[in-house]
Amino acid sequence: MATVGFIGLGNMGGPMARNLVKAGHTLKVFDLSEQAVAGLVALGAQRVAKAADVARDVDAVVTMLPAGAHVKSVYLGPEGLLAAAAKGTIFIDSSTIDVPSARIVIAEADEKGMRMVDAPVSGGVGGAEAGTLTFMVGGSEAAYAGAEPFLKQMGKNIFHAGSAGNGQVAKVCNNMILGISMIAVSEAFVLGEQLGIDPQVLFNISSVSSGQCWSMTTYCPVPGPVPTSPANRDYLPGFTAAMMLKDLRLAQEAAQSSKTPIPMGGMAAQLYALMEANGNDQIDFSGIVKLIRGEI
Amino acid sequence: MATVGFIGLGNMGGPMARNLVKAGHTLKVFDLSEQAVAGLVALGAQRVAKAADVARDVDAVVTMLPAGAHVKSVYLGPEGLLAAAAKGTIFIDSSTIDVPSARIVIAEADEKGMRMVDAPVSGGVGGAEAGTLTFMVGGSEAAYAGAEPFLKQMGKNIFHAGSAGNGQVAKVCNNMILGISMIAVSEAFVLGEQLGIDPQVLFNISSVSSGQCWSMTTYCPVPGPVPTSPANRDYLPGFTAAMMLKDLRLAQEAAQSSKTPIPMGGMAAQLYALMEANGNDQIDFSGIVKLIRGEI
Amino acid sequence: MATVGFIGLGNMGGPMARNLVKAGHTLKVFDLSEQAVAGLVALGAQRVAKAADVARDVDAVVTMLPAGAHVKSVYLGPEGLLAAAAKGTIFIDSSTIDVPSARIVIAEADEKGMRMVDAPVSGGVGGAEAGTLTFMVGGSEAAYAGAEPFLKQMGKNIFHAGSAGNGQVAKVCNNMILGISMIAVSEAFVLGEQLGIDPQVLFNISSVSSGQCWSMTTYCPVPGPVPTSPANRDYLPGFTAAMMLKDLRLAQEAAQSSKTPIPMGGMAAQLYALMEANGNDQIDFSGIVKLIRGEI
Amino acid sequence: MATVGFIGLGNMGGPMARNLVKAGHTLKVFDLSEQAVAGLVALGAQRVAKAADVARDVDAVVTMLPAGAHVKSVYLGPEGLLAAAAKGTIFIDSSTIDVPSARIVIAEADEKGMRMVDAPVSGGVGGAEAGTLTFMVGGSEAAYAGAEPFLKQMGKNIFHAGSAGNGQVAKVCNNMILGISMIAVSEAFVLGEQLGIDPQVLFNISSVSSGQCWSMTTYCPVPGPVPTSPANRDYLPGFTAAMMLKDLRLAQEAAQSSKTPIPMGGMAAQLYALMEANGNDQIDFSGIVKLIRGEI
Repeated sequence: MATVGFIGLGNMGGPMARNLVKAGHTLKVFDLSEQAVAGLVALGAQRVAKAADVARDVDAVVTMLPAGAHVKSVYLGPEGLLAAAAKGTIFIDSSTIDVPSARIVIAEADEKGMRMVDAPVSGGVGGAEAGTLTFMVGGSEAAYAGAEPFLKQMGKNIFHAGSAGNGQVAKVCNNMILGISMIAVSEAFVLGEQLGIDPQVLFNISSVSSGQCWSMTTYCPVPGPVPTSPANRDYLPGFTAAMMLKDLRLAQEAAQSSKTPIPMGGMAAQLYALMEANGNDQIDFSGIVKLIRGEI
Repeated sequence: MATVGFIGLGNMGGPMARNLVKAGHTLKVFDLSEQAVAGLVALGAQRVAKAADVARDVDAVVTMLPAGAHVKSVYLGPEGLLAAAAKGTIFIDSSTIDVPSARIVIAEADEKGMRMVDAPVSGGVGGAEAGTLTFMVGGSEAAYAGAEPFLKQMGKNIFHAGSAGNGQVAKVCNNMILGISMIAVSEAFVLGEQLGIDPQVLFNISSVSSGQCWSMTTYCPVPGPVPTSPANRDYLPGFTAAMMLKDLRLAQEAAQSSKTPIPMGGMAAQLYALMEANGNDQIDFSGIVKLIRGEI
Repeated sequence: MATVGFIGLGNMGGPMARNLVKAGHTLKVFDLSEQAVAGLVALGAQRVAKAADVARDVDAVVTMLPAGAHVKSVYLGPEGLLAAAAKGTIFIDSSTIDVPSARIVIAEADEKGMRMVDAPVSGGVGGAEAGTLTFMVGGSEAAYAGAEPFLKQMGKNIFHAGSAGNGQVAKVCNNMILGISMIAVSEAFVLGEQLGIDPQVLFNISSVSSGQCWSMTTYCPVPGPVPTSPANRDYLPGFTAAMMLKDLRLAQEAAQSSKTPIPMGGMAAQLYALMEANGNDQIDFSGIVKLIRGEI
Repeated sequence: MATVGFIGLGNMGGPMARNLVKAGHTLKVFDLSEQAVAGLVALGAQRVAKAADVARDVDAVVTMLPAGAHVKSVYLGPEGLLAAAAKGTIFIDSSTIDVPSARIVIAEADEKGMRMVDAPVSGGVGGAEAGTLTFMVGGSEAAYAGAEPFLKQMGKNIFHAGSAGNGQVAKVCNNMILGISMIAVSEAFVLGEQLGIDPQVLFNISSVSSGQCWSMTTYCPVPGPVPTSPANRDYLPGFTAAMMLKDLRLAQEAAQSSKTPIPMGGMAAQLYALMEANGNDQIDFSGIVKLIRGEI
């Protein structure tokens, strides 16, 4: 078993860290929330005084942070993780951040002789707790090989998406499709209701036809057809509209920097932004169906 | 075996009629194209002098027409099919048309003692030829029961979508999701390319993640991942952008009449309309990826 | 002075008819609302028994109806206005309707020897009452010459937009710009507020810069800069969101039939449709600023 | 007369600097392009060795740079302009950049005892040469008072938009309306053409009606109605689509950070991005009419 540093013990990072403890690793943890740290310490993790200390005398470090600026700030500079770690340390950044930031940090890690991957996740809090997350991983073969055993202890599907930053690329592309298709399904089911078709009947047909998509068949935005979907618990998240909006904004940034038109992705962002503006962005993103239906 | 009238022997209707001949039925056929009629006559079908004659002395009638105006014109009035047919005749309108027109004609058929369904199809020319079409069927139980045996001889998946017009409703809702998700997948794959991910790798990940959709996994708009998709034959249709635009315009009409906002469906229609405006609407609708990539 | 038939005595048609009475004409009026008819009769107008009767023994007829279907129904057929009128009668249809309906009816009028124009208006109820409406007129020179004196008694700016139907074309094009630019101004002023600029200062700058538009300088959607705008009376119409949506739907119809992409016009329609869906379409269309601000 | 430092002698900065020379000021200039520097030196300006040197022994400094990152890099840090200047120096940053960068730099200038404004311009190369630019200026009263005399020598309309950064706010809001309304006018004129109205007639009507906007009446995207507009010289810029796209991307950034939905602004950005993707972004932004017409 290994010694693993961990920064970021929130809704996602907390259960991920607990799964590493369960797997038998010794953890050194850091978080701005004392309560979050205490939760892990109670399970046997060691508290460290400052962020960079999680990288001292460890085999690997996992980070789960809100945005690219935080990742750059935590990793880089004389007080950063990369300066504190021994050569060859494995770094796994599971934050969902912009592609350039991921590539800058990993390039610096390479230069310092570390093995680092970007490994954003999907699967939500439920997946983090159950250890069934999906990881989309970018980095060299060597870095991937080093990270994979740890990722398998926190997740179920581990994909090597190519070189540094490509984990972020895969996630932003995948989630843009998700964010768009959820609105597409919402529009179709509201339109169907208005025209008099039973949502279950529409589901029965479309789920095995050319309109089939994960947004419908696994996460249906109207109550009924998929009993486990947030629609059946009044859009309690799940994955909030605010989180989807964050991902779509990353998609827009990526599209701008790469000169790619994304008319549907852009429009999807604006519609979730209407939920943000009217104060409904803390419900599940499938609650966009309520905007289409005129309820919010 | 039965005697069946058939109007509309084009790309879709032609092979559908041939499958009814193969099933052993006697056909009476009508089409404005003499060549189309001759093709069926060569297989043993009877030519009739005018449209309404296909409804005389037959058990069932199938129609495959371009738009609601044609359907109303062919069915209604003193020279229409409903006036020419014997009570109890089964009518199957497989045209993809607006919902109100479908409902008006079926209401009139009911009143005249006929058994009529709207039964638009999906599956394309390939499905029509192979007899593997999907039919989405609206109409009473009695009408559905009468139509079903014939539909099974032309298709594989037959769905009863509810009362009159609901076949059209199911199709317009399904195809709106399809038209939107195809653009979503196109944007995601072009964005991915620009950011440096291998399309096959993105496919491998997203096809088993939350971005999964039929547009990607069965009909991928970039060459490679799905060998049978039109992207691998230079976007030779398949299902043209013009046909998708027709369906999205029906969706807009339905949305307007039912007061449903469909921002993504509306935007999708505008993007296919750009293909129409720049003269590229005869390629497969998955060729929208070329618009996103700046190639058309 | 002349004898003028008038059909459609609602919010717009009522005051228009009153202005013709004031100008000294003898009116024959018809409306489904007995109350509306009584109002005109009290001013000296003659009540007629059925719609077509307004066209008997008159010099001119003015109609103000909700949609193309009504116009076709009132004008055409053996019981229609055109059948009832004497040759040479002047017809002014001031309804805002689809272009093809306008052209069909005027072609029929021409054939029957009438002089007919389509002459949709802008200027709202206030303009109708004050006799300051703008008329956009389509029709032959002869028809225009016949209609102009009457139009001048109901309006201030009379434009001859070309041949039959072009009045509708001019209106639909103009109002599409209006509907879009109102949202543009709303987005800009909300964005400005959020970023800390005083709306009056933004107005002072933009109203004399390249962002200047009627939506801002005459009908500003935020309270303050233009004291007469509906924003200063809690978005009391004026011109309702529902009316703007009707015009944008006509624009979509026209765009579809003429194969013109109108991405911004289409999106504007969807945003006003969100107001319709959430029950706020009876406020002034400049109230779209409340949707952008997250208030409705 | 004063001594003025100037950085950024490109298409806009070059003529602005020349106007300051013409006004009698002594200039110290810096640019990465030797040719650009030589042009000003030929008029009597002094060449300096590095950027910060323009701030030494001068009364005022004007900067014209591409983006916020450049502005921060040139102004801040031990080698920056603010470190090199004497207290009380007037700084005018005429770059069009993101609001937070402008505010950060001006806050730092305040702290160091300088008088600094953000003063982005509109009016294009023509306006820069003629000295008729519009300046939208953010900063304290004192900073504005110090900057104004210099601004008047380069421009005609000088607006004080409020405190630091508000010059950028005013510009981004104004230009977002411009970018949207140009597409609105383009859609309307293409739609009008398709429906058979003479563009000049549509212009005559709409330019005095509720669709009136600067994009139409001063910069009409179709040839004819406004002889000076780029449409009459094959969309030779003027203001390129690429420049409009830059401004709309700043609007998107500002909207994201301030949580403002800008559906029309966002969609406008995507449409200019289609011009970027298909290689047509170096024509004037009014050339978007060619995209709508299906020509590019």
